[in-house]
Amino acid sequence: MNPVRVGIVGLGRLGRRHAENLAWHVPGAKLVAACSPVSEEREWARAKFAEPSIHQDYDALLADPSVDAVWLVTPTSLHASQIIAALRAGKHVFCEKPLSLDLAECDAVIEAHARHPHLHVMIGFVRRFDASYRDAFDSVTKGAIGRPFMVRSQTCDKNDPDGFFVRFAPTSGGLFLDCSVHDIDLARWLLGNPKPKRVYASGTIAIHEGLRECNDIDNGVGTIEFEDGRLAVLYASRTMAHGHDTQTEVIGTAGVLSVGRNPRANRVEIADAHGMRNACTPTFFERFEDAFLREAQAFVALLRDGMPTGLTLADAREATRIGIAMRQAYESGRAVEL
Amino acid sequence: MNPVRVGIVGLGRLGRRHAENLAWHVPGAKLVAACSPVSEEREWARAKFAEPSIHQDYDALLADPSVDAVWLVTPTSLHASQIIAALRAGKHVFCEKPLSLDLAECDAVIEAHARHPHLHVMIGFVRRFDASYRDAFDSVTKGAIGRPFMVRSQTCDKNDPDGFFVRFAPTSGGLFLDCSVHDIDLARWLLGNPKPKRVYASGTIAIHEGLRECNDIDNGVGTIEFEDGRLAVLYASRTMAHGHDTQTEVIGTAGVLSVGRNPRANRVEIADAHGMRNACTPTFFERFEDAFLREAQAFVALLRDGMPTGLTLADAREATRIGIAMRQAYESGRAVEL
Amino acid sequence: MNPVRVGIVGLGRLGRRHAENLAWHVPGAKLVAACSPVSEEREWARAKFAEPSIHQDYDALLADPSVDAVWLVTPTSLHASQIIAALRAGKHVFCEKPLSLDLAECDAVIEAHARHPHLHVMIGFVRRFDASYRDAFDSVTKGAIGRPFMVRSQTCDKNDPDGFFVRFAPTSGGLFLDCSVHDIDLARWLLGNPKPKRVYASGTIAIHEGLRECNDIDNGVGTIEFEDGRLAVLYASRTMAHGHDTQTEVIGTAGVLSVGRNPRANRVEIADAHGMRNACTPTFFERFEDAFLREAQAFVALLRDGMPTGLTLADAREATRIGIAMRQAYESGRAVEL
Amino acid sequence: MNPVRVGIVGLGRLGRRHAENLAWHVPGAKLVAACSPVSEEREWARAKFAEPSIHQDYDALLADPSVDAVWLVTPTSLHASQIIAALRAGKHVFCEKPLSLDLAECDAVIEAHARHPHLHVMIGFVRRFDASYRDAFDSVTKGAIGRPFMVRSQTCDKNDPDGFFVRFAPTSGGLFLDCSVHDIDLARWLLGNPKPKRVYASGTIAIHEGLRECNDIDNGVGTIEFEDGRLAVLYASRTMAHGHDTQTEVIGTAGVLSVGRNPRANRVEIADAHGMRNACTPTFFERFEDAFLREAQAFVALLRDGMPTGLTLADAREATRIGIAMRQAYESGRAVEL
Repeated sequence: MNPVRVGIVGLGRLGRRHAENLAWHVPGAKLVAACSPVSEEREWARAKFAEPSIHQDYDALLADPSVDAVWLVTPTSLHASQIIAALRAGKHVFCEKPLSLDLAECDAVIEAHARHPHLHVMIGFVRRFDASYRDAFDSVTKGAIGRPFMVRSQTCDKNDPDGFFVRFAPTSGGLFLDCSVHDIDLARWLLGNPKPKRVYASGTIAIHEGLRECNDIDNGVGTIEFEDGRLAVLYASRTMAHGHDTQTEVIGTAGVLSVGRNPRANRVEIADAHGMRNACTPTFFERFEDAFLREAQAFVALLRDGMPTGLTLADAREATRIGIAMRQAYESGRAVEL
Repeated sequence: MNPVRVGIVGLGRLGRRHAENLAWHVPGAKLVAACSPVSEEREWARAKFAEPSIHQDYDALLADPSVDAVWLVTPTSLHASQIIAALRAGKHVFCEKPLSLDLAECDAVIEAHARHPHLHVMIGFVRRFDASYRDAFDSVTKGAIGRPFMVRSQTCDKNDPDGFFVRFAPTSGGLFLDCSVHDIDLARWLLGNPKPKRVYASGTIAIHEGLRECNDIDNGVGTIEFEDGRLAVLYASRTMAHGHDTQTEVIGTAGVLSVGRNPRANRVEIADAHGMRNACTPTFFERFEDAFLREAQAFVALLRDGMPTGLTLADAREATRIGIAMRQAYESGRAVEL
Repeated sequence: MNPVRVGIVGLGRLGRRHAENLAWHVPGAKLVAACSPVSEEREWARAKFAEPSIHQDYDALLADPSVDAVWLVTPTSLHASQIIAALRAGKHVFCEKPLSLDLAECDAVIEAHARHPHLHVMIGFVRRFDASYRDAFDSVTKGAIGRPFMVRSQTCDKNDPDGFFVRFAPTSGGLFLDCSVHDIDLARWLLGNPKPKRVYASGTIAIHEGLRECNDIDNGVGTIEFEDGRLAVLYASRTMAHGHDTQTEVIGTAGVLSVGRNPRANRVEIADAHGMRNACTPTFFERFEDAFLREAQAFVALLRDGMPTGLTLADAREATRIGIAMRQAYESGRAVEL
Repeated sequence: MNPVRVGIVGLGRLGRRHAENLAWHVPGAKLVAACSPVSEEREWARAKFAEPSIHQDYDALLADPSVDAVWLVTPTSLHASQIIAALRAGKHVFCEKPLSLDLAECDAVIEAHARHPHLHVMIGFVRRFDASYRDAFDSVTKGAIGRPFMVRSQTCDKNDPDGFFVRFAPTSGGLFLDCSVHDIDLARWLLGNPKPKRVYASGTIAIHEGLRECNDIDNGVGTIEFEDGRLAVLYASRTMAHGHDTQTEVIGTAGVLSVGRNPRANRVEIADAHGMRNACTPTFFERFEDAFLREAQAFVALLRDGMPTGLTLADAREATRIGIAMRQAYESGRAVEL
C-alpha cells in the first residue's frame, strides 16, 4: 500500500511537532512538502528533513501533484479558505482546531466538502486521541459509570508573564473560542452528542488587564444545558501558576470518571521541606505530546483504511456555535438560547 | 470559670452527635438539658446521660434557668421562631444551618438579636471549623495563592436508593438551599465576603424522578458573579456512587488551593484486581466528625472568652439570599440580578 | 458504673497529651492523680486540672487508695520496676512502649503479672488503635488481600537539627528498640503472630555523627524471617526532611494494603510554582493524635467491660526480643538466629 | 550522515517491540536484518517489514556486511557468546539485560570488548532511559535531596496464574538475577556507583510451589551495604494482584524522591462503589514502552554521535555479581561479604 504523502502548512512551534511526527513516527505517512511564508521556518524544514519540497506559497503546494493531503497548522482566520482551496485541488485535509470563529465560514467548508465527498477533512480536536481520554470514552461507553449526565471540563494554561496571548487576543476569538472549544467538543463526545439548549458564561480578568480593550478575559466559566437535561460545566484559564492543567470529569448515575485530576509531569514525587509534591506539565505540548502523534496516525488510518475517527465537520461547527454562544452570554450577562 | 450550661433541642442523628460532644468532649461545656418531641429520642438521652433534665417541650426547656444556651438541631422551618424565643428567654443560641429558607425570617432573627446584643447567636456552618478548611482559610489569608479570585465548591452526597431526601424535599428548600448553602458560605468566607451581583443555575434529575413534583432536582450547578469580578462555581448532588464528596478549590493569581480532592475515608489504600484505590467517606458525618466537635468548642470559647468565630447572622442571611436566587435562576432559566 | 480513676505518671509532652485525654475525652475515666519529679510539670498539672492530687513521688501515688490504675509515661529504664510496684500496690497499669530494653526485665514483669491475674497491664503500642491501622487489620483479617505473607513498615521521624535524640541515645536502646519496635509489633499483629526465625539489620549515620560514640545510627533497615516463611522488612529513620512518615504495607496473595503512603497533614493540597503538593504530618503527635485517645478509651473499656485489646505482655516482650536481635545483627554484620 | 543499520536477533514479544521501534521510530536507525530460529517469528518479520533480510541463523546475520550493529533479544544463556561473536565480526552490540548469570562469562565479554575498543556494547538496563527515572537521576545529581544515602527499589510483576515463569525458572538465574538485577543497577546508578561491601537476602514462595524444585522463590527481599555506609533495600515479586509495580525511592539528607509510587496505567481515575481508584500498568511492556524507544535512540546516538550513555559493561558485570551474592545469601541464610 502506498504511503500517504503529506504537505504541511505552517511551521510554528506546533507545526514543527506535527512535521516531525509525520516525517518519522507515523508508519504509512510520508512528509513530502512543507510550506511557510516565514523564511526561518523554511530554513528549519530544509535543515531538518532531506526529502520534502519547501514552498513559500500555499498555492504552489496545492499545485504539487505528489501531495495527497495538506496538514494545516495556520492561523484560525485562514482555516476555512485554505480547506476549501485544498478540496478544490483534490487534497485531503487535516486542520488544527478550531474550524473557524465564524459560523458562516463553517457552513461554507461543510458545503465545499459535500461537493468532494471522496476527500477527508479532519479538524484536530487532539484530546480525543489522548490515551487517557480514549480510555475514559471507552469506559463511559461500556457503561462503567452508568448513564453519564454531566461533564465538568477545564483547559487551564500556565500563566505567561510576557502575555503573548494578550497580543494574540484580537484574533483568537477570545477565551471561550480558543480554549473552551476543546472542552465543548469533549463534553459533546463523552455525553453522546446531545443537542444544546441554553448556555451561560461568566468571566474575569485576574491578571492580564491588557485583555480589557478587546473585551477578552483570562478566566472564564460556563454552563451548557442540553435538551435532554444533561449538563456541562466548563472552565478556562490563562493564569495558572503550576502548569498546564487540563481536567475532565464525567459524572454518571453509577460513578464519576476523571481524566487528569493531578496534572503530574511524570511518575516522580518528592518529599522535602515543601511537603509531598510532583511537578506539573508545563504546557499542552508535554501533556498531549503522544496525542498529537496518535491523531496523525488516526488521520493516516482514515485515509488508507477508511478507519473512521468519529470526528466530523458537524462536530467542529457545533463546537464553534456553542463557543460563540458562551462569548455572547459572557458579554450580555444573560443566558443564551440555542 | 463556670461551665456553659447547654440544653440541646432535637435528638435525631445529628442531634445525638452534638449531644455526645457537648456531654463529653467540650471542656467548659456541660450538657444540662435535652428536649425532643419524640419519645424514643428522649429515652435515648435518659439512657445515655446521667445528668441532663429531659424535656418534651421547647418552652419548658427555655423556662429552665440552669440553661445558659440552647443548641438547636431542629427542622429548618422552626429555626427562626425558636431562635427568637430563646433570645427572649435570655439564652445564647447555637442553631444548625440554614438560618431559614425565607429572607423575612432571617431579618426577623437579626432584629431580635439586635434587641439582645449581649447574647450570642451562631449558625452552624460546620465546614468553617473543619481542620482542613481552617488551614485553607489561613493559607489563603496569608497570601499563599496570591489574590484569590474564584472558588469552585461542591457538596455531593452518596446516593440513597431509598430516597429519604425525596420525602424531605417539600420542606428542604430544594437542592441549592439545602446543600449549596454550605458552598455559598465557604465561597464568601474564602473570598473575603465580596458582594454578589448576579447568579445563574441549572439542574437535572439524574435518578430520583420523585423530585419532579416539588420542582426539585438531584444534581445542580450554579455560578455566582461578585461585584468585584470574583466568581464562584458550585455543584451539588444527591446521587454519588462512591460516598459523600465535599470538595472546594480556591483559585488565586499565584496558585490553586484545594480541600478534599479525594474524599478518602482514612489513610488506607489497597492495590488489587480493582486497581489502586481507597475507600471514601460515606456521609458528611464521617467527613465532618471532628468539625462538629471543633464547632462546639468554638461556640463555648465565644461564650466564655469572647473569642470571635468570624461567623455572623448577616453571613447566614446572605447564604440564604444567594441560595434563593440560585433556585430562581434554575426555575426561570435566566440569570438573576442581586 | 463507677469511673476508672487514673493516676498519670510523667508529664512530659506525651504525658500531658495523655493527661488531657484522660481528663476530658475518655468517658468512664477520671483523672484523679498526677505525678512528676519535675516541678514545672506539676505546676502545669495544677493549673490545668482542678481535681487531681499532685504527687512528686511515685510511691506516694501508689499509696493513694483512690487510684485504680496508673498511667506510666516515664523513661523506658523505669518501666519494669514501676509496673511491678504498681501491681504490688494493686493497681492496673497502662505503660508507654517499649516494655523494657532488657529481656530479663520483661520476664520479671510477666511473672509479677502472673501473681496478679486480676489486674490488667497494657503496653501502649498506639498504632494498633489508629483508625487506619484498625481498618487495615480488619480488612486483612477478613481476607481482603488473600493470605498476607509480608509486611513492610517504617517509622521515620522528621530530622531535628538540634539532635535532641542524640542526647537521648545512650538510654533509648538505639534506633531499632526505640523506633522499629512499633513496626515489629505491627508486623506480628498484621501477620497473625508468626514465630520469628532469623533477623538481619543494617544501618548508617546520614547526618548525626554524634550517635557514633554510643554505636547508634540515624537510619536503619532490617529483615525478619518467620518460621512459616513470612517476612517483614523494616525501616527507621531520624532524618526525614518532610515530616513524620509512618507507613506500613501488608502484601498478600490477592492484594497489597497500605497505610499512610502519603503522610499528608490533612485534606489540603496546593498547586503552585512548587508543583502539586500537600503538607506532611510534622511529628507522631499529629499523626497519632486520635490513636492516643482511642488507646485510652480501649484501656478503660478493658477495665470496665473486660473488652480485650488483643495486646499482651507476651507481645511486648516479643517486640523487645526481636528489636534486640536487630541491634545485634547490625552490630555484628551477621544474621541472628532466634 | 548514514543511518545505523541494525540486525535484530530474537523476535519474541520484546524482540518485536524492539524491531518495530528500530524500523519506524528511531531517526538515524535502519532495520536491515532480522534473525530468529523460530519460523513463526520469521514470518511475522516478513509480513511486517518490507526491507530487512531475514535469517534463521545468527552466523548468517553476522556475515552480512550491511549490518553495522546487532540487537540481541535472546535467552540470557546465549548473551555472552553472541556478544563475543558479534565483536569478532566487527559489529556493535546492543544486548538485553542481564549480561550473563555467570561472572566468568561477564569477564570474557569485557576482555573481548577490550580487544575491539572501537565497537560499542550496551546492555539494556532500560529503566535508565525511562523519562521519570531520568528526571529522578537528574534531580538527585543536582542535589535536590541533599546527599542520597539509601535506595529502596522494587520490581514486582503481576501474578501469572499460568506460571509461565515457573517453567522459565531453571534458566532464569532465579528471582534476584532475573528481576532484582534492574534494582541493583538503579541503586548503583542513583547512588553514584558506590562499592558494595555486604549483601543479605531472604525469600519465600507465596503462590508458586513449582519453584521449590529449582530452589527459586516468587517473593524476595535483600539489602546491599556499600563501603561508604550507603544502603539499598530491594524487593522482587512475581505475585502482585494489581499489575506490574516498579517503584524506586532515593532517600537523601534533604528529601526523599520516588518514582512510580502509584503504578497508574494512565491519567484516568474512577470513583464508584469500589472507592476512588485507578487502573495499574499490567506488565513492564506498558510501563516501559517509551523507555524501550528512548533506549534505542540512545544507542543510535552513541553510535552516530558518540553520545555516552553512562552505562558500561562493568556496570552490567557488577549487577550480576551483586545478584549472585543475593542468591547465595538467600540460600545460606547468611550475609555474604563482597
